[in-house]
Amino acid sequence: MAEFPSVPLTIEGFFVLHQVFAFDWRAWRSTPLAERTRILSEAIPLLEEIENDGSNPAAIRSAVYSVLGHKGDLMMIHFRDSVQSLNEIELKLAQTEFYDFLQAKFSYLSVVELGLYESSIKSYTALAEQGLEQHTPAWNEAIGQVLKRQREAMSQRLYPSVPPAKYLCFYPMDRKREEKANWYVLPMAERQRLMHDHGMIGRRYGDRVRQVISGSIGLDDWEWGVDLFADDPLVFKQLIYEMRFDEVSALYASFGSFYVGVRQPVEALETWLDGNLTEMSTA
Amino acid sequence: MAEFPSVPLTIEGFFVLHQVFAFDWRAWRSTPLAERTRILSEAIPLLEEIENDGSNPAAIRSAVYSVLGHKGDLMMIHFRDSVQSLNEIELKLAQTEFYDFLQAKFSYLSVVELGLYESSIKSYTALAEQGLEQHTPAWNEAIGQVLKRQREAMSQRLYPSVPPAKYLCFYPMDRKREEKANWYVLPMAERQRLMHDHGMIGRRYGDRVRQVISGSIGLDDWEWGVDLFADDPLVFKQLIYEMRFDEVSALYASFGSFYVGVRQPVEALETWLDGNLTEMSTA
Amino acid sequence: MAEFPSVPLTIEGFFVLHQVFAFDWRAWRSTPLAERTRILSEAIPLLEEIENDGSNPAAIRSAVYSVLGHKGDLMMIHFRDSVQSLNEIELKLAQTEFYDFLQAKFSYLSVVELGLYESSIKSYTALAEQGLEQHTPAWNEAIGQVLKRQREAMSQRLYPSVPPAKYLCFYPMDRKREEKANWYVLPMAERQRLMHDHGMIGRRYGDRVRQVISGSIGLDDWEWGVDLFADDPLVFKQLIYEMRFDEVSALYASFGSFYVGVRQPVEALETWLDGNLTEMSTA
Amino acid sequence: MAEFPSVPLTIEGFFVLHQVFAFDWRAWRSTPLAERTRILSEAIPLLEEIENDGSNPAAIRSAVYSVLGHKGDLMMIHFRDSVQSLNEIELKLAQTEFYDFLQAKFSYLSVVELGLYESSIKSYTALAEQGLEQHTPAWNEAIGQVLKRQREAMSQRLYPSVPPAKYLCFYPMDRKREEKANWYVLPMAERQRLMHDHGMIGRRYGDRVRQVISGSIGLDDWEWGVDLFADDPLVFKQLIYEMRFDEVSALYASFGSFYVGVRQPVEALETWLDGNLTEMSTA
Amino acid sequence: MAEFPSVPLTIEGFFVLHQVFAFDWRAWRSTPLAERTRILSEAIPLLEEIENDGSNPAAIRSAVYSVLGHKGDLMMIHFRDSVQSLNEIELKLAQTEFYDFLQAKFSYLSVVELGLYESSIKSYTALAEQGLEQHTPAWNEAIGQVLKRQREAMSQRLYPSVPPAKYLCFYPMDRKREEKANWYVLPMAERQRLMHDHGMIGRRYGDRVRQVISGSIGLDDWEWGVDLFADDPLVFKQLIYEMRFDEVSALYASFGSFYVGVRQPVEALETWLDGNLTEMSTA
Repeated sequence: MAEFPSVPLTIEGFFVLHQVFAFDWRAWRSTPLAERTRILSEAIPLLEEIENDGSNPAAIRSAVYSVLGHKGDLMMIHFRDSVQSLNEIELKLAQTEFYDFLQAKFSYLSVVELGLYESSIKSYTALAEQGLEQHTPAWNEAIGQVLKRQREAMSQRLYPSVPPAKYLCFYPMDRKREEKANWYVLPMAERQRLMHDHGMIGRRYGDRVRQVISGSIGLDDWEWGVDLFADDPLVFKQLIYEMRFDEVSALYASFGSFYVGVRQPVEALETWLDGNLTEMSTA
Repeated sequence: MAEFPSVPLTIEGFFVLHQVFAFDWRAWRSTPLAERTRILSEAIPLLEEIENDGSNPAAIRSAVYSVLGHKGDLMMIHFRDSVQSLNEIELKLAQTEFYDFLQAKFSYLSVVELGLYESSIKSYTALAEQGLEQHTPAWNEAIGQVLKRQREAMSQRLYPSVPPAKYLCFYPMDRKREEKANWYVLPMAERQRLMHDHGMIGRRYGDRVRQVISGSIGLDDWEWGVDLFADDPLVFKQLIYEMRFDEVSALYASFGSFYVGVRQPVEALETWLDGNLTEMSTA
Repeated sequence: MAEFPSVPLTIEGFFVLHQVFAFDWRAWRSTPLAERTRILSEAIPLLEEIENDGSNPAAIRSAVYSVLGHKGDLMMIHFRDSVQSLNEIELKLAQTEFYDFLQAKFSYLSVVELGLYESSIKSYTALAEQGLEQHTPAWNEAIGQVLKRQREAMSQRLYPSVPPAKYLCFYPMDRKREEKANWYVLPMAERQRLMHDHGMIGRRYGDRVRQVISGSIGLDDWEWGVDLFADDPLVFKQLIYEMRFDEVSALYASFGSFYVGVRQPVEALETWLDGNLTEMSTA
Repeated sequence: MAEFPSVPLTIEGFFVLHQVFAFDWRAWRSTPLAERTRILSEAIPLLEEIENDGSNPAAIRSAVYSVLGHKGDLMMIHFRDSVQSLNEIELKLAQTEFYDFLQAKFSYLSVVELGLYESSIKSYTALAEQGLEQHTPAWNEAIGQVLKRQREAMSQRLYPSVPPAKYLCFYPMDRKREEKANWYVLPMAERQRLMHDHGMIGRRYGDRVRQVISGSIGLDDWEWGVDLFADDPLVFKQLIYEMRFDEVSALYASFGSFYVGVRQPVEALETWLDGNLTEMSTA
Repeated sequence: MAEFPSVPLTIEGFFVLHQVFAFDWRAWRSTPLAERTRILSEAIPLLEEIENDGSNPAAIRSAVYSVLGHKGDLMMIHFRDSVQSLNEIELKLAQTEFYDFLQAKFSYLSVVELGLYESSIKSYTALAEQGLEQHTPAWNEAIGQVLKRQREAMSQRLYPSVPPAKYLCFYPMDRKREEKANWYVLPMAERQRLMHDHGMIGRRYGDRVRQVISGSIGLDDWEWGVDLFADDPLVFKQLIYEMRFDEVSALYASFGSFYVGVRQPVEALETWLDGNLTEMSTA
């Protein structure tokens, strides 16, 4: 057995649900104005209600985006403390008449995740030096302490508000398990080095883009989901293009579909339905 | 010819059918209340009836889950003693008016399976040492005895009740047959070692997750189905993430779609239809 | 040029069409009873008529299966002496009102085929020893004689009735043409050996499963179709699982979707529509 | 730079459009007879009109096939001298009421093509020996002359009529660009040899099958389309099976879906709609 | 760390949206003439309005094509200075009654891009020789100057009008990241050489085809989109066929679907709806 586990220490925060819907413009247009008003008077308060999960009045936990292209018209992102809460949001939305105009095209279930490669190597090494065998009660206790400290220190990143940026880019991804390029057989030190270099690129873009990584192994069809929030969508291309030459992406990444949307205030849903985008104040 | 068979001794129990349905919320909402009541007064007794297959009054053989995301709204799992019984459940459900609101999105047919790698090596070796040639009547008789004993010993696992856990994660999977990573050409001793190590990880999670493996070669499009039952869905991610670094998964596993659901009591179907999740007592 | 052809001698019999349909339960349920009766009084005689193709009153040439899962509700298999006859069956079914309730989900066109690997080697070798160059009139004449004799000897297998077994498993498959595992560049003697070993496994299951292989290169999207007929569907899994470890499958097979159905007598179609399976006498 | 181009000299003739439609039998059956008659009295003359493109009264430029299986019900093939003309046929068909019953399932855009591997080697070599550098005006002029001569000599094959055969088999295909098997990096002499051997097989089937190759790089999703016309559909299987062992197919071919149809005279469309196939005289 | 970045200097211009729609001919034909006239009197002015984005009265920023085959009936291409503007076009179109007849089948979001391989090598080398470390303020400043100069010099290509050519061919593509053929691990000098040779082929076709490359990493599912505009669609095939033998395509390119359309003037939309193509003057 290896000296210490292959799996990195990982801490998790909010569960995340992305929902992508096509909007039935034809049915909407053929709905009498009075009925539309009634429908919105039910839908908008619900959307306003779910914007915040009650845990922190200033925090935005759900947001709406106007999606580019045929993949959908509206995308919602929800951060919640349980899978059950995310399912309840789905069920509440499905109760509204507004939902009659939405067709689910895509969704993604994941959980905000921070992979602690540096902590892992440090902790696993220290415990090995102390002669603790992995998965023994003492080892578990020590690792539990590390995770607890990290969860507290990283709390802001584990339990995020939706950043106020104008644009969102979401995509799911895997690490490859091919015959030569197999992420899951690399030594941890090698993975740590690759993730470190990868992070360095992200850091240079830190003032222009906010990134939220969520894990979805066992929850959805890819291993991770990536949300990028930025005021200039060109940054999505520049960052990901630069990263694609980075060793970890060049060799080990495989990508799903990309969804790009323009953030819309839920209270301006009627404006959007009339064909106009609303500029959010990002103060 | 090899000294003994490549195929491990395998014992089977219940046949299993997973059904995933989208629910037509729009049609339901536009159905008059009296009609809905009538529809449910037909559907719920049927669901209650199929919860139990008559073989054991305490056993739950069918259960319902509220599904996360666009892959579906309701998932059912059925354990039965024959494929015919599973098909009869499908046909009975299809007779109800409630079925008008369901659209079949996915299903999976399999049979609860235990692969007996350790028994296989022991038995095949013993019989070879006794000079019995494989597939001769004496060899078949001896193997038949082993299988019979194992089936009796493992009866609880072969003929399970639906565990009372709050969450279900289902996914199908294959063992790879690639040019270098080909599970089906590995010597049995190597496969036994890999499965043993794999099982060790599962064992550490044994108190937090209940696993049911079912085989589907010749029954459906992947080779196995995996059901994980847990009260905390984070465990799905942690267990499968850790396993992904394990040699057998890292090199030989290939995965289908993941379905995650929240268990709902069938008698509370109306509550679910009203947009609320019911907490099941898991006493 | 190789001493003799790479393509094995192959004899063909009936053309085969598989049709898989979803059934529109909602529309059926909302059809008045009198109308349903009228619809069935048209459909059942047609199905009874096509059960037999007139060539042999005792032979069943078309049969109906109740399909497991979301892939479909009804599967039909038709054996006919020409592609035109199969297309005529499709057109006749499409004329009935019953066809309004069927949605075509899948189909497969193929022709019953026996690959004569042992005959090929024997004949090609003999003709080469006689100094006959391949594809010359004399060589063609000699090969033609071999094929004619084989077609007569194998007539029962080339022109089958639908076996009376309770369950059917159908799947299409390819032989791989990958960089290392390429069936089509193997020497014929190697392919003959692999097919021989493969056949040995099948032979052990001969009393529990009846197999019909049909070729579909140039007719449909995979190279072969496989029909397995058995009274116990567990045998499908056991046979194919065991075969998967066999060299020819482990290295060279690639599989499509698996369809499993329960045979239903066409005259009991109404029973099936009422949600009940009929047990066929398999006398 | 290579001594001469890698791309073979290629001459093109008619543009080709394949259209595959599902037919809405239910809607047709529920259309009153008088209306059906009116609809056909518009559709059949249009189909008769487009059978011939005016360039040669004896030539059939468009034809209709009754398709096997769920991939469609009707397939049309159109040979025309421009992409615009093909689009105009689509638009004219779409104007008819008959088009209400057709659902487009597949199509393929290509151009009849002859790859002149032997000419290429001969011409490129000769011009290199004359010291002409490729793509210079003199070289271009000389190559232009070769192409012109070939186009005239091959005019019958570049601008075909639809052969009168009873059955059509259509499929698209690619040449592989894999790591080891990469058609596009082979030396031209090697490709010439492979194509020559391939052609030898086709030649042996020349009296039983008529083949039209069309190129579709830059026009549709595969690189080539293949149409085989034969009176016996078994020949499709035998020819393509034999070719699959041929080096160029075994190593370098990758195939799309196969569409098989039975030729129907457009004036007998009503007969087909009544569920009957018409035997065309192939005089 | 490498002496200089792996990512080439890249300049971007207009964002681009391709939209492909199926047209509901049946619904259109069943719409009374007066209503159709009204619908077009709303749609055509909108299409005329979006043809030009206001920045330059002579420039065509959006155009309409009649699409070949089942992939769609109408394709639109839009060049705009922001993703928001592209989304606004989508929303404006969705407001029209004409949109009731359109079904979104495909779309593509990208940004006009020029990869400056030669500039990159020159600049990165010069700055390294000056001893400037990459990503320092001085290095960033110097690179910023290079990009600014190139953007000004290339302004015509970055902010194009829709070329007046009769035909459009659009397809998305990737550079491969396979085990041996991995574009993203090639040294920049090698990539520069490959792109240079590739460009040489394009140059020979420069008088017959106009090419617009747009980048879509982080914006859509492939890495680049390619638009070819030509008066003769045979040129699409000839150019791409010749390029496929070029090293960079033969080894590193992977392609999506190809969309071919015939340019139609938006003011002649009614003509198209009546089944006729309009020849645009390409003066």
